[in-house]
Amino acid sequence: MARPTGTKRDFLRLTDLDRSELLELVERAAEWKLLGKRGPRPLEHATIGLVFEKASTRTRVSFAVAAYQLGGDAMMLSPRDTQLGRGEPIRDTARVLSRYLDCLVVRTFEHDKIEEMSRYASVPVVNALTDSSHPCQLLADLLTVTERFGADALSKGGLSVAWIGDGNNMANSWLEACVLLGFDLRIACPEGYDPDPKLLARAGGHARVVRSPAEAAAGAHVVNTDVWASMGQEGEADERKRRFAGFIVDEALMQKARPEAIVLHCLPAHRGEEITDGVLEGPQSAVFDEAENRLHAQKALLELLLSPR
Amino acid sequence: MARPTGTKRDFLRLTDLDRSELLELVERAAEWKLLGKRGPRPLEHATIGLVFEKASTRTRVSFAVAAYQLGGDAMMLSPRDTQLGRGEPIRDTARVLSRYLDCLVVRTFEHDKIEEMSRYASVPVVNALTDSSHPCQLLADLLTVTERFGADALSKGGLSVAWIGDGNNMANSWLEACVLLGFDLRIACPEGYDPDPKLLARAGGHARVVRSPAEAAAGAHVVNTDVWASMGQEGEADERKRRFAGFIVDEALMQKARPEAIVLHCLPAHRGEEITDGVLEGPQSAVFDEAENRLHAQKALLELLLSPR
Amino acid sequence: MARPTGTKRDFLRLTDLDRSELLELVERAAEWKLLGKRGPRPLEHATIGLVFEKASTRTRVSFAVAAYQLGGDAMMLSPRDTQLGRGEPIRDTARVLSRYLDCLVVRTFEHDKIEEMSRYASVPVVNALTDSSHPCQLLADLLTVTERFGADALSKGGLSVAWIGDGNNMANSWLEACVLLGFDLRIACPEGYDPDPKLLARAGGHARVVRSPAEAAAGAHVVNTDVWASMGQEGEADERKRRFAGFIVDEALMQKARPEAIVLHCLPAHRGEEITDGVLEGPQSAVFDEAENRLHAQKALLELLLSPR
Repeated sequence: MARPTGTKRDFLRLTDLDRSELLELVERAAEWKLLGKRGPRPLEHATIGLVFEKASTRTRVSFAVAAYQLGGDAMMLSPRDTQLGRGEPIRDTARVLSRYLDCLVVRTFEHDKIEEMSRYASVPVVNALTDSSHPCQLLADLLTVTERFGADALSKGGLSVAWIGDGNNMANSWLEACVLLGFDLRIACPEGYDPDPKLLARAGGHARVVRSPAEAAAGAHVVNTDVWASMGQEGEADERKRRFAGFIVDEALMQKARPEAIVLHCLPAHRGEEITDGVLEGPQSAVFDEAENRLHAQKALLELLLSPR
Repeated sequence: MARPTGTKRDFLRLTDLDRSELLELVERAAEWKLLGKRGPRPLEHATIGLVFEKASTRTRVSFAVAAYQLGGDAMMLSPRDTQLGRGEPIRDTARVLSRYLDCLVVRTFEHDKIEEMSRYASVPVVNALTDSSHPCQLLADLLTVTERFGADALSKGGLSVAWIGDGNNMANSWLEACVLLGFDLRIACPEGYDPDPKLLARAGGHARVVRSPAEAAAGAHVVNTDVWASMGQEGEADERKRRFAGFIVDEALMQKARPEAIVLHCLPAHRGEEITDGVLEGPQSAVFDEAENRLHAQKALLELLLSPR
Repeated sequence: MARPTGTKRDFLRLTDLDRSELLELVERAAEWKLLGKRGPRPLEHATIGLVFEKASTRTRVSFAVAAYQLGGDAMMLSPRDTQLGRGEPIRDTARVLSRYLDCLVVRTFEHDKIEEMSRYASVPVVNALTDSSHPCQLLADLLTVTERFGADALSKGGLSVAWIGDGNNMANSWLEACVLLGFDLRIACPEGYDPDPKLLARAGGHARVVRSPAEAAAGAHVVNTDVWASMGQEGEADERKRRFAGFIVDEALMQKARPEAIVLHCLPAHRGEEITDGVLEGPQSAVFDEAENRLHAQKALLELLLSPR
């Protein structure tokens, strides 16, 4: 239900948290993972709206199950089913949905749209993927890092992260994490596919863009990649295949990383393009744990936004 | 689950209630609004089916949240997802769904279809919008009237209501309310867009159709409007724009109404067509409270049909 | 949530149960029917994913209500809404969904697909219809048989069942039931539309294919039929109408069966094609009880797979 404006809290970018909040959130996510589905129910009576302009498996299911396991309910609202598809102004949709729902989890193309949603909604708005940012995935990724490298891996310093491929919304959110946590981040992408230069500047000496995947992967704890053409970029697929040739996470590239390095991919994966089947299915791959961690991280996030302890 | 035929109660038109039931329902809706989402749970274990042939935000979300807050569950069944889309006779669908669900909330084009559903369903059927009637919206509208003009505004007499624009399902449902409650209703619409003449006749001296928005708005407590072309009438949009020119709720028209008059619109609104942005966003607009009141009114309705006190 | 592989149990074919398990399941379904929606809640905190590639009313609603009445939740995942539609390998989808959900109820065209799902999922997979098998419908049908012919109708011997029409997935599942229970099954279908020959061989002397509906129906307790063209076969509809001429369950055919015979049809029905309106609506028709029994049978099934007593 509507709350007085000013008391609600959104999660549009990772940097909507400060450093200590982010570390606590990841820690709390690990606790939720231990608690399992029979944990406390801080969202009792709450209903979460999933307002999605793009198809989704992981995001939709993990949020719905998270809401349900926290004692609440979730409702899928695709543009096809709602007036969003008939051109109602976002400011009206945001205000109306705020009268019924306790939180709006929004997946859209333009980041502007979610910012407008946030301005007009009187309930918390969560970014479940825009063209410029994917902070919920980052929460899951950071949880996965702590599982593999220790609870203090994000805070003690020395962590080295490689991003291989498109400087897309995921690369941007890794930059946001880098701004907050100050680890060493190397983003290897072809010219013309760089991440957001403002975020790169904010990360200062911690992050840099390189043109060689091997240079990015050298000595990394974490090697990340993502599909070359995201949803909505299908028309550029051929051009992108040409430009991203060589930006593949394969066995040879993994030789450059630390022996204990893990591989992350937010899925779905295109085997033989950005990653080999051998790496994806190999012992260094943490991708299915990473996928599962969406659930636990989002339980911690919903708790923070809707029922802060 | 199926109940013996004869014991179930439908809500296809406002006039399925009598005057005192309608007044009590609006009063109970106000109580549910005070109770909020942590009220009693009279729908525990019940599942509501939302059988929708038309897109919907408000109706779908408000019914689903209502069912959930009352302790039950709701399930969206669009024709795309169900056999309704494959030409199964309504009498079969109605009987089968009655075996699984506790209530069918139906949104369709032809009113005949919902009447056939009602004949064959053994559980309560609720009209969530047809081409000829929108009684659930009226419950919300009447609740909004009592919030602004006092709990006895509907019963004490003297209420004056203006409808500006298309003599559509909403205009018809205002006529049904007028039949039951006997307030003064003036419907301003272009020739050829009159509401149902039978309902107009039933309302007797209380309601009349006029051709001048100013005449309808004069001295009104409540000024209502709606889009000129409803869903399914997109092909007539240009013709309608021409015919409805002048039937706009703007600042000048509001000058004709009482100073304390409120503006209602069931949304979505087309600013600059049937209403100005200034009026919609102005101090006399009650449209977002009206939208929220769908939730509370429908909680009272579901309680009445499924768990009468 | 994920369980160690090896401890999960799937239901892809009726023969995934043994004879005594099947008899117990039908008995337990009858108990769930008596318990109604206020029975025990063995699925508390569990979420069931409904992964459907084909439209569905009965299957979707009956599974969702079953999950909810058992204390859990269900989530519809159509290919349109999920990455399944973007060509993600089934092995990835199966593994990811297993991290969030407690059971995957899958409706697909090719039976191979559900077998692949089963291999990679770490939670129980249920066949909610494939081109070759529809075991959940059979559970409901067998429950209906025991309601009409006594609790021991399936175990005491002497039961005679006729299938009239296409040797499709339903005919195959009746064959599977025959393999387990050893009743007398006669399948009347035109040449070229025979059921799975391997299943027919497994049923041994209990089942046979005949070309005459009258021969199949003679002395039967149960007369079954189904639409001539299932979903996905719309292109063959005209050809099939020609080939299936005469394979109609009409009043004359019912004269061949026992006087107390019942008629089953998993719906939707095409009156005047595979069945007459008179038979479908007549006193021998058990089709709406059969439809309702989907709910009760699936409660027993979900309990067995997720919370065995």
